[in-house]
Amino acid sequence: MNMLSSHTANTERASSAHGRVQASRVSDLMRLTCLSALARDSILWQAIDYHFAAPGSQSRSAIALHAATKLGLTDEDSVHLAAAIECLHNASLVQDDLQDRDPSRRGQPAVWKKFGPDLAINATDLMIASAFALVASVGSGHRSTSLAMHMQRAISLTLQGQSEDVLRIHRSEKDALAIAADKSGPLFALGLVLPLLAAGQEKAAPLASMAGRHFGVGYQLLDDLNDIEEDQKSGFIPNSVLSRMEVDTIDNARQQIALIASNHAALARDLAAQLPQDCGELFSQSCDQLIAKLRF
Amino acid sequence: MNMLSSHTANTERASSAHGRVQASRVSDLMRLTCLSALARDSILWQAIDYHFAAPGSQSRSAIALHAATKLGLTDEDSVHLAAAIECLHNASLVQDDLQDRDPSRRGQPAVWKKFGPDLAINATDLMIASAFALVASVGSGHRSTSLAMHMQRAISLTLQGQSEDVLRIHRSEKDALAIAADKSGPLFALGLVLPLLAAGQEKAAPLASMAGRHFGVGYQLLDDLNDIEEDQKSGFIPNSVLSRMEVDTIDNARQQIALIASNHAALARDLAAQLPQDCGELFSQSCDQLIAKLRF
Repeated sequence: MNMLSSHTANTERASSAHGRVQASRVSDLMRLTCLSALARDSILWQAIDYHFAAPGSQSRSAIALHAATKLGLTDEDSVHLAAAIECLHNASLVQDDLQDRDPSRRGQPAVWKKFGPDLAINATDLMIASAFALVASVGSGHRSTSLAMHMQRAISLTLQGQSEDVLRIHRSEKDALAIAADKSGPLFALGLVLPLLAAGQEKAAPLASMAGRHFGVGYQLLDDLNDIEEDQKSGFIPNSVLSRMEVDTIDNARQQIALIASNHAALARDLAAQLPQDCGELFSQSCDQLIAKLRF
Repeated sequence: MNMLSSHTANTERASSAHGRVQASRVSDLMRLTCLSALARDSILWQAIDYHFAAPGSQSRSAIALHAATKLGLTDEDSVHLAAAIECLHNASLVQDDLQDRDPSRRGQPAVWKKFGPDLAINATDLMIASAFALVASVGSGHRSTSLAMHMQRAISLTLQGQSEDVLRIHRSEKDALAIAADKSGPLFALGLVLPLLAAGQEKAAPLASMAGRHFGVGYQLLDDLNDIEEDQKSGFIPNSVLSRMEVDTIDNARQQIALIASNHAALARDLAAQLPQDCGELFSQSCDQLIAKLRF
């Protein structure tokens, strides 16, 4: 479920024809990079093409494009960084659907459901490799190395969070929050961190990482809240901070979770607002939208 | 099953203390890069550490180290390239075991068997990302970009071959050979291609890719031959050129396959021998060992 509404991205894109062209270049570049070495009649080509045929909101790449532009990167570099981020996001969707056994994505059967688990695994591998190929042409020397290293670090933390999560080994509310932060934070942060590194603003990267981490907690908790009703029906509350909270009623739990989530999103917004050259402006708007959704 | 015996690698390594030190640096660097961002008590750390605790023959990284040294790369760059190749090889092992449901690897339960399929998937993702982080510090400018692009291409072809293979959609003997070449060739070739690119010898890269491709066919066919007996028992011959050949007896089939495999391995050896500065010398020795194993 995509809780970052496409509103922000759309507003931003509509604000300039240039923005629309860039967003469209991001999708094209991501798709072409992933498919570049494959035979058109191969099953892997078909699986990846199928997944990309249903476009997402591209809210993550919009944040990266916005940040890159504010930081003065070239169009070419901006589009490559945004495509890398969108690529990693799609890899995480295909893999999450498989691991959570979610049968559908963007209104059609998920890749694993349509092509089988092995193809979903292989498509994910290729999307991850393609994200690195995309950043490899951005920057040079120390900056170029730094982009790949930070991307590997973000992927490590995401996978660490996902690994703890699928095994349902949350031991406490604090653990659950840390897992939520690991699982979503690093990929959100990359939309700010990669443009900062490419622009030589590495000193601001830790601030952007923190912003992403807090946003990730807020985002995961909203996900939990949206799932509560369904979880109650099944009698099993997975992936959820709720399952570790001592509360008397579901309504109290919802209120508590919404409050925690709002606080994290507000912190993320305030951190992003401190980033150089207003590069976190669109990210901060996403935080405000998240907070608005947490008012039940 | 590892059919590239460790003989070549061992001979090479024993030839110099420097070689032994380098080989040990490759394992350490690979492991440390994969684990660098993970918490020691995380389940993902444990799964990756577990897999690396049982070392393989490191024959692939020995070929890369040898080529890099012959081409005059620094020790630092040589070890990074070799570690990246070993990382991708390990990713392919963890994933193949999962997809083929092979319960053991290197004398212990495979990662998916011990930690579950999701952890095997996540460990593979991280090994792929780590391979890119490792090459990101090698070379600069155009050369650095080229390393990542070629690695993505090799991964694409490997996954394409693996995808066709797991779906058992070989349509002819020719298809089966192409799938075998895709599935194994590109990763073998990388041991030569990456050092060549890092040394600015990109013109020789297509020759190295061809050598890897032919070696891949020979390697996969030997794998098929070794599996025939077991496959005959189960009555199902998977992943095999044999299943598409029109032969009267199994013995005739074995002889035919061995002949095809030997021809490919000999071609690989002769192509590698044409590479600059004798950088394909160790690779060619591996080809000869493969040919020797094909004499039943």
